[in-house]
Amino acid sequence: MNPHWTESGQNLTGPSGILELMDDLGNAIGRDDLCMLGGGNPAAIPELQAIWRERMRELLDHDTAGFDRMLNNYDTPIGRPAFIEALAGHLRRRYDWDIGPGNIAVTNGTQNGLFHLFNAIAEPGRPVLLPLCPEYIGYADLGLRGPSFVARRPAIELRGDHDFKYGIDFDALGLKGKPNEFAAVCLSRPTNPSGNVVTNAELARLSEQAAAAETPIVVDNAYGAPFPGIVFSDIEPTWDHNTILSLSLSKFGLPGTRTGILIADESVIQGMRAANAIANLATGNIGQELVTPLLESDRITELCRDVVRPFYESRAKQADLWLREAMDPNLPWRLHACEGSMFFWLWCDGLPISSAELYQRLKARGVLVVPGHYFFFGLGASGADWPHQHQCLRIHAAMPPDITQRGLGIIAEEVAKAYAG
Amino acid sequence: MNPHWTESGQNLTGPSGILELMDDLGNAIGRDDLCMLGGGNPAAIPELQAIWRERMRELLDHDTAGFDRMLNNYDTPIGRPAFIEALAGHLRRRYDWDIGPGNIAVTNGTQNGLFHLFNAIAEPGRPVLLPLCPEYIGYADLGLRGPSFVARRPAIELRGDHDFKYGIDFDALGLKGKPNEFAAVCLSRPTNPSGNVVTNAELARLSEQAAAAETPIVVDNAYGAPFPGIVFSDIEPTWDHNTILSLSLSKFGLPGTRTGILIADESVIQGMRAANAIANLATGNIGQELVTPLLESDRITELCRDVVRPFYESRAKQADLWLREAMDPNLPWRLHACEGSMFFWLWCDGLPISSAELYQRLKARGVLVVPGHYFFFGLGASGADWPHQHQCLRIHAAMPPDITQRGLGIIAEEVAKAYAG
Repeated sequence: MNPHWTESGQNLTGPSGILELMDDLGNAIGRDDLCMLGGGNPAAIPELQAIWRERMRELLDHDTAGFDRMLNNYDTPIGRPAFIEALAGHLRRRYDWDIGPGNIAVTNGTQNGLFHLFNAIAEPGRPVLLPLCPEYIGYADLGLRGPSFVARRPAIELRGDHDFKYGIDFDALGLKGKPNEFAAVCLSRPTNPSGNVVTNAELARLSEQAAAAETPIVVDNAYGAPFPGIVFSDIEPTWDHNTILSLSLSKFGLPGTRTGILIADESVIQGMRAANAIANLATGNIGQELVTPLLESDRITELCRDVVRPFYESRAKQADLWLREAMDPNLPWRLHACEGSMFFWLWCDGLPISSAELYQRLKARGVLVVPGHYFFFGLGASGADWPHQHQCLRIHAAMPPDITQRGLGIIAEEVAKAYAG
Repeated sequence: MNPHWTESGQNLTGPSGILELMDDLGNAIGRDDLCMLGGGNPAAIPELQAIWRERMRELLDHDTAGFDRMLNNYDTPIGRPAFIEALAGHLRRRYDWDIGPGNIAVTNGTQNGLFHLFNAIAEPGRPVLLPLCPEYIGYADLGLRGPSFVARRPAIELRGDHDFKYGIDFDALGLKGKPNEFAAVCLSRPTNPSGNVVTNAELARLSEQAAAAETPIVVDNAYGAPFPGIVFSDIEPTWDHNTILSLSLSKFGLPGTRTGILIADESVIQGMRAANAIANLATGNIGQELVTPLLESDRITELCRDVVRPFYESRAKQADLWLREAMDPNLPWRLHACEGSMFFWLWCDGLPISSAELYQRLKARGVLVVPGHYFFFGLGASGADWPHQHQCLRIHAAMPPDITQRGLGIIAEEVAKAYAG
């Protein structure tokens, strides 16, 4: 059979960076010979895993009816009323946001939630503006009607010999005084892939310009509080009615439950509710059921502060030491400031081969990373003469230490070989 | 905020039958005052629930690493390799199908799988042909670019005073000698809403015509073997490379896990794999993990035969008695042959009010059903003068007996009142 794909079918069923990444990830499971430093699989945090086991056992032992309902009941198209109520209460108590159950939609993972949101508001003629490229690989191919993202090159702050940080280039942004030209402004924070955390000052300025342009701002908080809270400073999320905040249970150790959350104005939530009924019928219940008591008791705050953040921060610090030890200090590589998320973003300035080629050479040696070029999209003409796009790698920095150390050593060797030509 | 929806956004975010149904269902949970005979929530079958509890406990007690991986790992975009391998093996042993792992895609529920499949192959100018209308309410609004289904009126076989059965009207079908006019032919079997099981002879004739027209045939087997097996006869599913078979874990008591399965030619599976990576990243793991051992041991066959089918068959028989007892025998109502699924399909011939009005009256009395008109779509001009579309109700026949009996009594009363004018 040779299926006849529609136009959107062709857009969806072709090759994509996210497909390559997810295939690498899935195929690496159980392969002890591979250093899996690609993908975005959360680390296995023993304290977190113990909590999920304990919670499941509690359901089995003391709330059999709750366990049965979790598996056997369809809830509403945007989630379980008890979970939504608990989350709204927690967010009100913790951040004092003006938020109620009507501002929350649960989705089958953030990827699916943003797929529907972006296709419902954006199209090639009215794209989403990404103010700081590189941005998340998973957005690149979401557009059913074709590419629906326009991205801006960042300001690059060089720090010392081997460090750097991206910033929003407000001069290049082109948002001011352009009502409704863009479907939305969107950024991940912490940024996937670079581990950047856009500063409070940058975000405030961006939000102000977005509001003035009557354009909602989407903040993809997949690595930020209140769920995993993988931010290595005291920066907290913000929300107002012009903001669509995307949250995830995945990085909280629950990707297998496929649970994402959108926090937004009620008009957006109502649209997502209708879309979810048609495209998904209902949400998965298990992640919601496991997490609800942690929200009701606010225990989630300590868990993020005392378990999740220290775990990722310690792994990142250790990996940072290993990487700097392994890399030749005389070569012009730079590491992006790792301010959150679980990734290192390595820039090999002037590298004679492309990151795609470097990815292949690393794969041949059993080290999987994600080649950086996939995170540069939507640049149009402004990207044509920018070699930086082909000089970066995204490296998972929170895998088990022995894998990380071995992988980073091989990366350092291959980078040195590539520079040597 | 007033979101600007794109064209497909408008199609997705507007009112729909499936949204009304899912909202009714979600909002009825925990409301003991309601007789919930709408929705498609599976019945709570004690033996099945005990099996899922036991399996989860086994993971916690004897395979902690497996439990942790189930929650914390992303698998491939179309499922867990171990589940797919186990399912392929089971299907080969049980049905002798020429099938391998490359013919299987797991999706986040059948609704999501068919949403992507139909949008990838169909559009308003090249629709999916539904050979027997009424068909599943959840297809009606799937088309991102507008209505993408063309449906045919059925042949109606009257049986005695109060029974009937639909059949495919091959004279009206218009499939013969029309290569590629339709994106696919699709039917649910058992049919949702009518409980009809299209006969083996009908299906064989349909498959032959579809193959001759170079058109794939989608058989939505959400209620059929090998998962729930809610078919009250020995009819078994069939599959060949021109067939796309859709299966579901939902009716096996696991809707909260959102797990659907597509069995198809490898070319279709590869397309779904790419689409799933973009739109969903990965599949939910929990349903797959719970069911895998039942497939490996083939125990699933007995479970369907000895537990699931007898349970639904006995509830349907009991409800059939209650309904016939409650309904006025002098009124011209008819019940569709309940050959499978969990639904009764009640046709009130010549009813002076519409099924939409009857639904509202029943809701006011605390009985939720699904008004039949939502299941009639894609008929175009052929539906214009067909009162039958507004004379039917879909009634869940497998809810707890006290709810069913009370609800059926009230339905009988309201139907009698409506006929009396």
